[in-house]
Amino acid sequence: MKLGRMNHVGYAVPSMEEAIAHYRDAMGATSITEPFDIEEQGVKVCFVDTPTHSGMDGTQVELIEPLDENSPINGFLAKNPLGGQHHVCFEVPDIEEARSEFEAMGKRILGPTRIGAHGTPIFFLHPKDMQGMLTEIMETPKDGAH
Amino acid sequence: MKLGRMNHVGYAVPSMEEAIAHYRDAMGATSITEPFDIEEQGVKVCFVDTPTHSGMDGTQVELIEPLDENSPINGFLAKNPLGGQHHVCFEVPDIEEARSEFEAMGKRILGPTRIGAHGTPIFFLHPKDMQGMLTEIMETPKDGAH
Repeated sequence: MKLGRMNHVGYAVPSMEEAIAHYRDAMGATSITEPFDIEEQGVKVCFVDTPTHSGMDGTQVELIEPLDENSPINGFLAKNPLGGQHHVCFEVPDIEEARSEFEAMGKRILGPTRIGAHGTPIFFLHPKDMQGMLTEIMETPKDGAH
Repeated sequence: MKLGRMNHVGYAVPSMEEAIAHYRDAMGATSITEPFDIEEQGVKVCFVDTPTHSGMDGTQVELIEPLDENSPINGFLAKNPLGGQHHVCFEVPDIEEARSEFEAMGKRILGPTRIGAHGTPIFFLHPKDMQGMLTEIMETPKDGAH
């Protein structure tokens, strides 16, 4: 494995509207994407951009709100009613190579490789094999976008 | 508030040694600082560097291990025995200005402004006022180092 960019940290929130207001008004974020639904995952998400020394390509905050009462995020929010870190996402140059390497290490991979919120292939690794962190592995977009 | 760089995410771990091995061997991190004790906070910490498109100035992972049985991290690990996100840290250009602004917003600040692990002034904000996130605010180092 070659560790890539920490693309985003995924934070579950009970209210997307309040979370966006928090990052915009209290934290001073100037670039927040429009929220959009990922119906097959039962969530609404948006991304808060953060700066680095060289621009706005810092690790994003992904805000995650349940889409409905069947959302898999509801269980997480029941345990963390104020919100909390749901997952962390690191980029890799080649998703299939990374998947093979994690498999060879005996790490439990959760489901198939699929297209994630940034339009590139992703998969998730079990928190029990990842220092307690639900970990998303995401192929770096070819255009370098984030 | 002007949102600065996401300096680091602080992850509590039951074993610093195992966590370092995880980031180095499973995740492929190539730059991990030597662990050091912060006795007044009852913790041992080290930082895992991550890349951005422009270099190794990405958001760091701070690994946090209890120093002894009185460490304030023990309670967190009792609830999250595998480890988990303990806090998130954002940079600001001016720590006193940021503190005044959060005070004016009515956000609860935990203790005095003090010198943090990167040698610049920091303070913490209560998770109940910060979308469930224990949030560290850190003045950007003057030399741009992280």
